[in-house]
Amino acid sequence: MSEPRRGFASDNYAGPHPEILAAVAGVGADHAPAYGDDEVTARLSDLVRAEFGPAARVFPVFNGTGGNVVVLAALCRQWGAVICAETAHVHVDEGGAPETIAGLKLWTVPTPDGKLTPALIDKQAWGFDDVHRARPAAVTITQSTELGTVYTPAEIAALADHAHARGMRLHVDGARLANAAASLGVSLADITSRVGVDAVTFGGTKNGALGAEAVVVFDPELSEAVRRLRKTFGQLPSKMRFVSAQLEALLTDDLWRRTAAHANAMAARLEAAVCQVPGVRIARAVQANAVFAVLSPAVTARLRTRHRFYTWNQATGEVRWMCSWDTRPEDIDAFAADVAREAAADPG
Amino acid sequence: MSEPRRGFASDNYAGPHPEILAAVAGVGADHAPAYGDDEVTARLSDLVRAEFGPAARVFPVFNGTGGNVVVLAALCRQWGAVICAETAHVHVDEGGAPETIAGLKLWTVPTPDGKLTPALIDKQAWGFDDVHRARPAAVTITQSTELGTVYTPAEIAALADHAHARGMRLHVDGARLANAAASLGVSLADITSRVGVDAVTFGGTKNGALGAEAVVVFDPELSEAVRRLRKTFGQLPSKMRFVSAQLEALLTDDLWRRTAAHANAMAARLEAAVCQVPGVRIARAVQANAVFAVLSPAVTARLRTRHRFYTWNQATGEVRWMCSWDTRPEDIDAFAADVAREAAADPG
Amino acid sequence: MSEPRRGFASDNYAGPHPEILAAVAGVGADHAPAYGDDEVTARLSDLVRAEFGPAARVFPVFNGTGGNVVVLAALCRQWGAVICAETAHVHVDEGGAPETIAGLKLWTVPTPDGKLTPALIDKQAWGFDDVHRARPAAVTITQSTELGTVYTPAEIAALADHAHARGMRLHVDGARLANAAASLGVSLADITSRVGVDAVTFGGTKNGALGAEAVVVFDPELSEAVRRLRKTFGQLPSKMRFVSAQLEALLTDDLWRRTAAHANAMAARLEAAVCQVPGVRIARAVQANAVFAVLSPAVTARLRTRHRFYTWNQATGEVRWMCSWDTRPEDIDAFAADVAREAAADPG
Amino acid sequence: MSEPRRGFASDNYAGPHPEILAAVAGVGADHAPAYGDDEVTARLSDLVRAEFGPAARVFPVFNGTGGNVVVLAALCRQWGAVICAETAHVHVDEGGAPETIAGLKLWTVPTPDGKLTPALIDKQAWGFDDVHRARPAAVTITQSTELGTVYTPAEIAALADHAHARGMRLHVDGARLANAAASLGVSLADITSRVGVDAVTFGGTKNGALGAEAVVVFDPELSEAVRRLRKTFGQLPSKMRFVSAQLEALLTDDLWRRTAAHANAMAARLEAAVCQVPGVRIARAVQANAVFAVLSPAVTARLRTRHRFYTWNQATGEVRWMCSWDTRPEDIDAFAADVAREAAADPG
Repeated sequence: MSEPRRGFASDNYAGPHPEILAAVAGVGADHAPAYGDDEVTARLSDLVRAEFGPAARVFPVFNGTGGNVVVLAALCRQWGAVICAETAHVHVDEGGAPETIAGLKLWTVPTPDGKLTPALIDKQAWGFDDVHRARPAAVTITQSTELGTVYTPAEIAALADHAHARGMRLHVDGARLANAAASLGVSLADITSRVGVDAVTFGGTKNGALGAEAVVVFDPELSEAVRRLRKTFGQLPSKMRFVSAQLEALLTDDLWRRTAAHANAMAARLEAAVCQVPGVRIARAVQANAVFAVLSPAVTARLRTRHRFYTWNQATGEVRWMCSWDTRPEDIDAFAADVAREAAADPG
Repeated sequence: MSEPRRGFASDNYAGPHPEILAAVAGVGADHAPAYGDDEVTARLSDLVRAEFGPAARVFPVFNGTGGNVVVLAALCRQWGAVICAETAHVHVDEGGAPETIAGLKLWTVPTPDGKLTPALIDKQAWGFDDVHRARPAAVTITQSTELGTVYTPAEIAALADHAHARGMRLHVDGARLANAAASLGVSLADITSRVGVDAVTFGGTKNGALGAEAVVVFDPELSEAVRRLRKTFGQLPSKMRFVSAQLEALLTDDLWRRTAAHANAMAARLEAAVCQVPGVRIARAVQANAVFAVLSPAVTARLRTRHRFYTWNQATGEVRWMCSWDTRPEDIDAFAADVAREAAADPG
Repeated sequence: MSEPRRGFASDNYAGPHPEILAAVAGVGADHAPAYGDDEVTARLSDLVRAEFGPAARVFPVFNGTGGNVVVLAALCRQWGAVICAETAHVHVDEGGAPETIAGLKLWTVPTPDGKLTPALIDKQAWGFDDVHRARPAAVTITQSTELGTVYTPAEIAALADHAHARGMRLHVDGARLANAAASLGVSLADITSRVGVDAVTFGGTKNGALGAEAVVVFDPELSEAVRRLRKTFGQLPSKMRFVSAQLEALLTDDLWRRTAAHANAMAARLEAAVCQVPGVRIARAVQANAVFAVLSPAVTARLRTRHRFYTWNQATGEVRWMCSWDTRPEDIDAFAADVAREAAADPG
Repeated sequence: MSEPRRGFASDNYAGPHPEILAAVAGVGADHAPAYGDDEVTARLSDLVRAEFGPAARVFPVFNGTGGNVVVLAALCRQWGAVICAETAHVHVDEGGAPETIAGLKLWTVPTPDGKLTPALIDKQAWGFDDVHRARPAAVTITQSTELGTVYTPAEIAALADHAHARGMRLHVDGARLANAAASLGVSLADITSRVGVDAVTFGGTKNGALGAEAVVVFDPELSEAVRRLRKTFGQLPSKMRFVSAQLEALLTDDLWRRTAAHANAMAARLEAAVCQVPGVRIARAVQANAVFAVLSPAVTARLRTRHRFYTWNQATGEVRWMCSWDTRPEDIDAFAADVAREAAADPG
């Protein structure tokens, strides 16, 4: 039997973690109420409070796009707008879902590294009282970012204070929140509820689940809006316990941290293995489970004959290599060897 | 170890069928492209063509609300409207999703049994050219209906012809399409592509899946719209192969028909067991897996102390009992005995 | 020079009242701030407070569809729904604007005469806490109704109390509010702010304006939502003073009442003139400026060769004759004579 | 009697041109069909074809925001996006209307002068087949731009060819189309239908109307979408003839060109008068009726005590002075004198 193939295209190319698969299978044969009124979801609620803080309320959803749109719409009225980085997944990678489903306007800001700062927020945080300008009502950041960088607790606290002082709320798109927390060595509360975050979309799918995300809110006023919009926006699983079971498994015995820390370590190993290779330039700080590198087009083309990965920037030749919960050291080593060999074969 | 509890509240209270759970677990540990560019989804596409006809194209989605909104929006421009029965799930049970996500207007028609007819369609199929009236662009029917009734192939063909002659398309909300086909003893194509249906939302969740539905379209022109809207409306699973695997299992060895036929048979058994009970009136033809009965409020209240089920009409005392793929004959017999005992205890 | 042609098709077929045209022309040649920060709009605000009560705040808009959608969206969050009569303009005559622009669901109720009652509201006012059911958040009534009937102050008060007791708000679509107030002999406040109405769309266009409507709200909390949505929904006139001037004229020297009372009187004259004609049946109480009559198709067809009017119900032969601010007694008399002549010529 | 006050804040601060007011008053007292089925609108249709070319079809609307949203939605399906300059009115000044009403995503591009080029379009014109990226379906340009610059016919032709080659349509937001045509000395067709533009929002309000804009489309396929969306988006005037009359007046005896050319000449006069003033820097090419200048904050503040105008960029001190159809040479001269006096008083 051949070894499973594992690549660097995306952490959502990976399959489920055995503990998660076992959790789903273990829900059992009993009938249980649909739409979240079940025991698994009740246990998940307790785990989320334990992990995210006592004010946390959890709303399992199907996917990140859905979770983000539900929670951003809950944070805004129809004339509201959301400030985000120009690289934000919610802006560039969700097919226009925030605009189309929820009618939200995104006010975008270019950033050097995918991270907003108070000063960058202020590029768009103005004109609050002007009806001609869609009102900035929320700020959303991605943690870890689409560029593999990580916000520190202090940075998030500063963003939250800044947003709140201007009447805005702070949301975290946490598709890879686990990778950020593992990288920082902190709890999930340390980078959300304890530093002023109002709501988070907590991702499981990229961290070993079959398909499970959750909106977590820390303000009771938001709960009713999220509860309603989850249904109205098509994100309320009928057999919710099988989504909840995946999230429960992630929050049990720190599975989320084990998987994320492993993926992060694999990215660090990859960076270390290729950073000295002539013709390869590490393009961004490797703080989570992504490595961005600049290669020549010829090297990229030859690598692609055996490995699947995404080009991030056609113009600069920057590519993205994602590590997953199931990436093995030998996968890294073999890939790094291929990178080195192809780079060495480059005439340039 | 105690027996699993199985009740009559809803077919989405049931857990997954073992073959479906095995299919998910069997997808394996390889990495695979996300968003449907994987081998499981490719196999599913073949199976769907085999079952629904060669023109069928399948788009797995998370849930029925999502699938319905995606496909109805694909059938309409923004000024379009959808004709449906007043009892349609899409109208009464989806939290306003069609209106809110897709801006669709629903033109509703009262029906005696949950089923539209050409004459009933015509109550709303007029004024096509009048800008003041949201343009009827599609008709949606539910199969089997929310009232447990089933459209015959000839009835669907007549609806399709009628709709097409007026420039409208015909959609089937097939959350329980399997139950209808099993009841009629026909193939899924016999009640969709072969009788003029343009698109269907094919349900797996109520028929033994963990959570898996699919939009199936028979007109290539609709494919691009469904492909786009599935993403924009938040219904594109990233690890799609685990949704596809559930649908593949349902379409393998006629699992969909085995499970649905069993649920239907259990409903028939329940009907037979209670239809003679004094104080119990079967309210509607039992053609799929639902039994609607009228009881006195006192009987309903006492039954509720041990069994969970929904009241359909507070005013008339009509209740709904749903059978599932996993309902056992002994569940029926025990429940029917309880019904008989409580009805006998009724002074009225 | 020929006499102006005046017919019975619609009160929006009429031209502008001379006082309104003079008001627009009289705004003058000065530059003035756009978007409502001008002296005409300031004077209008005072007049609206004088007429509608001290809490009233006015927001001029372009048309009734726009005004209704702005204010209904202000009354609801995205999961909210609006209860209305099945005959409501907002449901049948606005091209799906509430659903498409604002994502609102309308819960409709059949009525005998176009008027909701507390009991009729309760047909749809339930399930407030159920996420599967779009939450009833507002009730909208039309005054005078699409069927020419009028709500009394006591009836409105009962509706407002009923709505408020269930956590809903009451909106009045007042495209013909003036006709209702003139019919009842009361002030505009008597049928809005004084009887618990939360917001009204006050119409000028059908009562002698060129094109001028206004959202009037009585709850300061609604003001910000209306102010924002008026812009976001495309209903904020840039040169607002020319819309405001029309409304100012209507509220000056009771022009609104003079015009509406005249139109009502003409409808009464028409009813009196034809109610005894054999073959003509007055179909509804004539309480405002509309007369609904049932004629044979042949009579209708012959009348149409010289007069334009709308068929209300093809099946019953019911037609609608609208009177306007500029309908003259001689127009009525000539038309009634034609009706009598054609009816007499009917073999049936 | 005092002279009318005329300032430089905005061309929509100006009142109506006498010929337009006369046209509205001259529509007369006859009843006429509502919603555009009237003689004035029929005459307007002829004039628009004469001016814009034989394929032109005109749809009067209330305002520019409404017209833009109607036509852009007609150009896109729900997953479509519109490429525009970062400074586009539709992006920064319409309260989020495109996103909220029509669910459109705007892909924005920074520009040096408010003008898109083929190369700038390509910053966003990619990923057409990728469902994760809202599909670029149209390009919109503003003529004259928000920065007072003008596209030449050749530039527009190049944009149209570029857009069409990529499967996109080209829309012109022509709130000040007249100013551009007058500046270029060309016809309205020369910068629209003759150079490949698919649709235009033609503005009257800023050029002497009370409030009148029109969507003009050159592709018959778009007509039905615009006809429908105009109603559904709340932009269908019931007494349309009074909007059409304003547009008819503008297209009669080249009124649109007389008014626009005058406003342009006044801007040129202002530029000439202040460009040599020490402390005043003309910031942009003056090609239409806007002058952008950079002043010190102190000078701006003192000028504001007597003149109302907008700051364009707080950071740089750039202000905008708009000239109107009714700006008089003496208004320019007096204002320029004030500018010179205040600049001279500046210690810096």
